[in-house]
Amino acid sequence: MTSPPTTGPLTFDELGLATRNRGMPLEALRYDRTPTGLHYLLIHFDIPELDPDAYRLEVGGNVERPLSLSLDDLLARPARTLPVTMECAGNGRALLSPRPVSQPWLTEAVGTAEWTGVPLAEVLSEAGPRPGTLEVVFTGADHGVQGGVEHDYARSLPVEEAMRPEVLLAHGMNGRPLEPQHGAPVRLVVPGWYGMASVKWLTRIEAVTAPFDGYQQVGTYRYRRDEEDPGEPVTRIRVRALMAPPGFPDFLTRRRIVDAGPVLLRGRAWGGEAEVVRVEVGVDGAWEEAELGPPLGPFAWRAWSYRWEAEPGEHVLACRAADAAGNAQPLEPPWNHGGFGNNAVQRVPVTVR
Amino acid sequence: MTSPPTTGPLTFDELGLATRNRGMPLEALRYDRTPTGLHYLLIHFDIPELDPDAYRLEVGGNVERPLSLSLDDLLARPARTLPVTMECAGNGRALLSPRPVSQPWLTEAVGTAEWTGVPLAEVLSEAGPRPGTLEVVFTGADHGVQGGVEHDYARSLPVEEAMRPEVLLAHGMNGRPLEPQHGAPVRLVVPGWYGMASVKWLTRIEAVTAPFDGYQQVGTYRYRRDEEDPGEPVTRIRVRALMAPPGFPDFLTRRRIVDAGPVLLRGRAWGGEAEVVRVEVGVDGAWEEAELGPPLGPFAWRAWSYRWEAEPGEHVLACRAADAAGNAQPLEPPWNHGGFGNNAVQRVPVTVR
Repeated sequence: MTSPPTTGPLTFDELGLATRNRGMPLEALRYDRTPTGLHYLLIHFDIPELDPDAYRLEVGGNVERPLSLSLDDLLARPARTLPVTMECAGNGRALLSPRPVSQPWLTEAVGTAEWTGVPLAEVLSEAGPRPGTLEVVFTGADHGVQGGVEHDYARSLPVEEAMRPEVLLAHGMNGRPLEPQHGAPVRLVVPGWYGMASVKWLTRIEAVTAPFDGYQQVGTYRYRRDEEDPGEPVTRIRVRALMAPPGFPDFLTRRRIVDAGPVLLRGRAWGGEAEVVRVEVGVDGAWEEAELGPPLGPFAWRAWSYRWEAEPGEHVLACRAADAAGNAQPLEPPWNHGGFGNNAVQRVPVTVR
Repeated sequence: MTSPPTTGPLTFDELGLATRNRGMPLEALRYDRTPTGLHYLLIHFDIPELDPDAYRLEVGGNVERPLSLSLDDLLARPARTLPVTMECAGNGRALLSPRPVSQPWLTEAVGTAEWTGVPLAEVLSEAGPRPGTLEVVFTGADHGVQGGVEHDYARSLPVEEAMRPEVLLAHGMNGRPLEPQHGAPVRLVVPGWYGMASVKWLTRIEAVTAPFDGYQQVGTYRYRRDEEDPGEPVTRIRVRALMAPPGFPDFLTRRRIVDAGPVLLRGRAWGGEAEVVRVEVGVDGAWEEAELGPPLGPFAWRAWSYRWEAEPGEHVLACRAADAAGNAQPLEPPWNHGGFGNNAVQRVPVTVR
């Protein structure tokens, strides 16, 4: 039902996805908050057309009091605003070999926005999950076929994850209503998890008593050895640092040219499993500690910087982060069948003149 | 200095450009005004970091009264707001064979925004071009290497084009200040021309008495037979129609699935040479007239629609526009060395069930 990983050239299917979906150019790592139009986007099917005036969010399943909420109902509730770093689980996929055939991200599928919305826990508590509720299923209005299965995009969360106070029914992004491509009028935002959990164009929330087996839950977003392996679910964001490439680029190759002398290397580091506690910068394989900036919040990336004395010649720069739980970025990509969670260190070749 | 056109597979250089630059998913043809974060983007080098408080726009060269304008100076002047359809000159490049190696657009490099700014003609008139002024050169803050030439991005307009009342020094897009990637704090907007003319991050305007020979003017953006041909400059947008693909997609292939019965096909048509006067829809090679919606403005796309009775089976849908000057879209791509101005008709294979 899906194409096997390949060592062959990029396909036109992959190009079709790359021209639709949107990476964040890495110089945008300079912004604490990613401008809305620079945030990464991964959209499985088409952006649906939802009328905000007719919008309803149905909350049902194994609950005491099913709810049907309009956008105004949600806007009337107390809102919470949180800076959240979101990353696509497939970020880094095109750097794997063999390469899983899907959206061919290099390293740019990330962004940090200030999301505003109603805590999901409050709405769920109002509906009152009945005993036996195991998961909560979130369904979007985006519809299509993937892996041979026709479906509305849907994902579940274990009920204890759904009840985390920072999980939002978001209706605002960066101080404005959501733009259509980010899930208007209402989407889920699950801080700390890869982006697939943050269901866009949310239309239905359902408490269920058995594990959800929808395509996006069991057919993909799994760490699998091969097509047959059921694998482990993709959940929280693996720790990662990225660098804004220094100097200026060549248009076609994106090769960097840097003037000799002191260069302030800057980037961001984040992870969904524990706090980032360390970033190192590698220059031609020798690692030094970078300076961490102030935290923006528990679910947002953290700035880092490192002053490099650039000497003429060819160099390879790199960066790697570690978190408080002892996770660190690998030097080589962690391969899996779907190309998920590739948090291998970024390498940036530069020419110093 | 540049890679020759190829019939080979897509390269990682092309992928690097595709993951940075941003197409407009074609379902967004439904919006009169493209949401800011869905507008296409083509950025040659890095998005520069300009401090709006320190920003100066220098107006000089062969003028009576050189000017140095702050952002506040520009914001204090009367502004004009215009809906303008902008399209990348390279739109359609990756559909050519052999394929010029650059940003590999399929058909999605287009968008329509409401641009707000000061008419360039008023600022130019205040500076007072001296006799002998032939062109006006516009320089941006974006810096890099292309075709082996290090430069700030710069383009010129013939003085009579620069004096058109609809050419704007734009500081607003869709009712808000420009986002960084769209040229903040000030960019040029040249309605009717392909996007390369609308210089972003504008820092300098210079009246000149000889034809401008910068890289972006003479080294690229030319209709050339081959590397040696000086060619003709790329200027105004060639007439084109696009369709929002009907039904719903398969994730990987983007193949469309449509339910049998009446289907309202919808799209947009535009061109920079003359008014769009006709759109036709092709179903399996048979062409019928589409209905045109009301014009949004002289430089913006026009909606069209066509009611199709979809019968089960495999079909190929197409659309083509013609303008008041007698220009019509070709059925086969017009090839040139740089892959510019490919306005061949779009074809959308669909499966009706």
